[in-house]
Amino acid sequence: MATRRSGLQRGTRRPVIGVMGPAKAGVRELEDARLLGELIARQGWILLTGGRASGVMEAASQGAKAVSGSLTVGILPDEKTKVSRYVDLAILTDLGNARNNVNVMSSDVIVACGLGGAGTVSEVALALKAKKHVILLDAEKTGAGLFRNLAPQLVSTAASPEEAVQMIKDLL
Amino acid sequence: MATRRSGLQRGTRRPVIGVMGPAKAGVRELEDARLLGELIARQGWILLTGGRASGVMEAASQGAKAVSGSLTVGILPDEKTKVSRYVDLAILTDLGNARNNVNVMSSDVIVACGLGGAGTVSEVALALKAKKHVILLDAEKTGAGLFRNLAPQLVSTAASPEEAVQMIKDLL
Amino acid sequence: MATRRSGLQRGTRRPVIGVMGPAKAGVRELEDARLLGELIARQGWILLTGGRASGVMEAASQGAKAVSGSLTVGILPDEKTKVSRYVDLAILTDLGNARNNVNVMSSDVIVACGLGGAGTVSEVALALKAKKHVILLDAEKTGAGLFRNLAPQLVSTAASPEEAVQMIKDLL
Amino acid sequence: MATRRSGLQRGTRRPVIGVMGPAKAGVRELEDARLLGELIARQGWILLTGGRASGVMEAASQGAKAVSGSLTVGILPDEKTKVSRYVDLAILTDLGNARNNVNVMSSDVIVACGLGGAGTVSEVALALKAKKHVILLDAEKTGAGLFRNLAPQLVSTAASPEEAVQMIKDLL
Repeated sequence: MATRRSGLQRGTRRPVIGVMGPAKAGVRELEDARLLGELIARQGWILLTGGRASGVMEAASQGAKAVSGSLTVGILPDEKTKVSRYVDLAILTDLGNARNNVNVMSSDVIVACGLGGAGTVSEVALALKAKKHVILLDAEKTGAGLFRNLAPQLVSTAASPEEAVQMIKDLL
Repeated sequence: MATRRSGLQRGTRRPVIGVMGPAKAGVRELEDARLLGELIARQGWILLTGGRASGVMEAASQGAKAVSGSLTVGILPDEKTKVSRYVDLAILTDLGNARNNVNVMSSDVIVACGLGGAGTVSEVALALKAKKHVILLDAEKTGAGLFRNLAPQLVSTAASPEEAVQMIKDLL
Repeated sequence: MATRRSGLQRGTRRPVIGVMGPAKAGVRELEDARLLGELIARQGWILLTGGRASGVMEAASQGAKAVSGSLTVGILPDEKTKVSRYVDLAILTDLGNARNNVNVMSSDVIVACGLGGAGTVSEVALALKAKKHVILLDAEKTGAGLFRNLAPQLVSTAASPEEAVQMIKDLL
Repeated sequence: MATRRSGLQRGTRRPVIGVMGPAKAGVRELEDARLLGELIARQGWILLTGGRASGVMEAASQGAKAVSGSLTVGILPDEKTKVSRYVDLAILTDLGNARNNVNVMSSDVIVACGLGGAGTVSEVALALKAKKHVILLDAEKTGAGLFRNLAPQLVSTAASPEEAVQMIKDLL
């Protein structure tokens, strides 16, 4: 049952997969985020990101929008932030970085695609605090080590977007 | 242009119409909320509510889900609150009543269907504070008078769900 | 017991009295806010406001700081807002208007000094939603009527700052 | 100038030093937190913590309250959380873990006393995101390495509470 595993009461709603990652991302992270978004959408899952028009957020949303019938949600910090054009629904929280907690609370499973930004690190930490499963993709060693120490049973490391999606399937 | 009128940068995204109203609602409010939800969905607009399984929130979402292709979003205060089964996407904010500000910030136009609850009154006030247009439906005189005094140019009163939808069209 | 009446677990901490009111206030409201702040401080209570350098927030804080040993707290929406120089401790929430809910949650009793602003109206509504006692001072009829209808047992009307302070004493 | 260095407009207000750390802390962390709280209070600075009645939060507040004239502020997640009896002023945010962002936004400088909890890790990350200086005390290597990589110019490591206080002095 999704409800028990993810800690989220979900009823008949489609799963929501949160993809977090830096606004300033490298080529590898961007390619992985794009493919991850596409694979998530192919499963019929809803993609949730921080919604900005840059980095992993934009790449994941773009990947998802290549799939017909996909739904992409962006949780934005405020009205001034540029929203990615690949976001179908923008939630404008006006919470600044506290919106990072909304991102993780609203996701059934979280994938962090790169740990090179403080925002992403805060999201993984907040996810673990909320007892959510986090899958690390393209994580450098130090960050991965820190989070595995903090919550060994909630953190997995995926070697590819395909493996991340398989892990999500097992969790839902 | 929607952008200028509603104060929300919207790009090519579908309009988001927020329907607010009491969890404990009367028959008239519930019927109006249901019809309003349906009419909003028929326009192709996204319906946003507080997401709970009661009152105006549930009735509006139920109305929208009677329309094929509709999308209903619920902005929930926390994980414990029961989510309406007519909500497609639940944003679990963990913000308590501060989530009321997310409701109004994320909506292009707000319709308050009944002013009989403190939560709804807070949402109308927060909407006006954020310079959003609010349409009052089924509002008793005192509340309507207060809000018209506060922000005459942002508050309209509709006599029916049909009229509310016409007003939204004019605003978008 | 303060705990039972105010709904706030308070232990041995000094009571916190929230004074809410418009940034653009009239002469009467400003004078009442100043006196109210002073009387609150004379009781040894902590004064909490929205913290801005204008209107009722500034006047109440100024009144309190005329009393030796007083403590004034301001709950600010963001880093850019000018903080009143009469605020001893500024809590910078970065929550925008959602900070209004922090104001009322953190106060044992709330006094609204004037209801002429949408922000203040939202604070009274959020206070009632949280089952907090609200004392209305300098409230015009419409607003007072609306809130008394919403929550008759939580709303009182004071004719003067002195009467408001007497009501707070009875509530604590 | 404090204003330029800390990024916080502070006027004549006393500096606010945030001490973050796990609710479940080891003996070393608790002793350091207690001494840190005391040293902060001796400087006349305001101590800000997460306010709970456990771990580093309680130890730091207890240390500060051993000093006459000290002021301790606790930023609590909700009304149900037990507040430390060493907290003078409790801000009840009702924001869940999103209150962690309020903690760091409201502090001029942040000291993390132990990195063994996901909440503390989120606070350090949110502090760096907000361009705040963070001093790490009792940090294990992995966490310290991660944060130094993320923001080399904002992260310092102190070997003792005394050194942390000296670093704060240099920053203010």
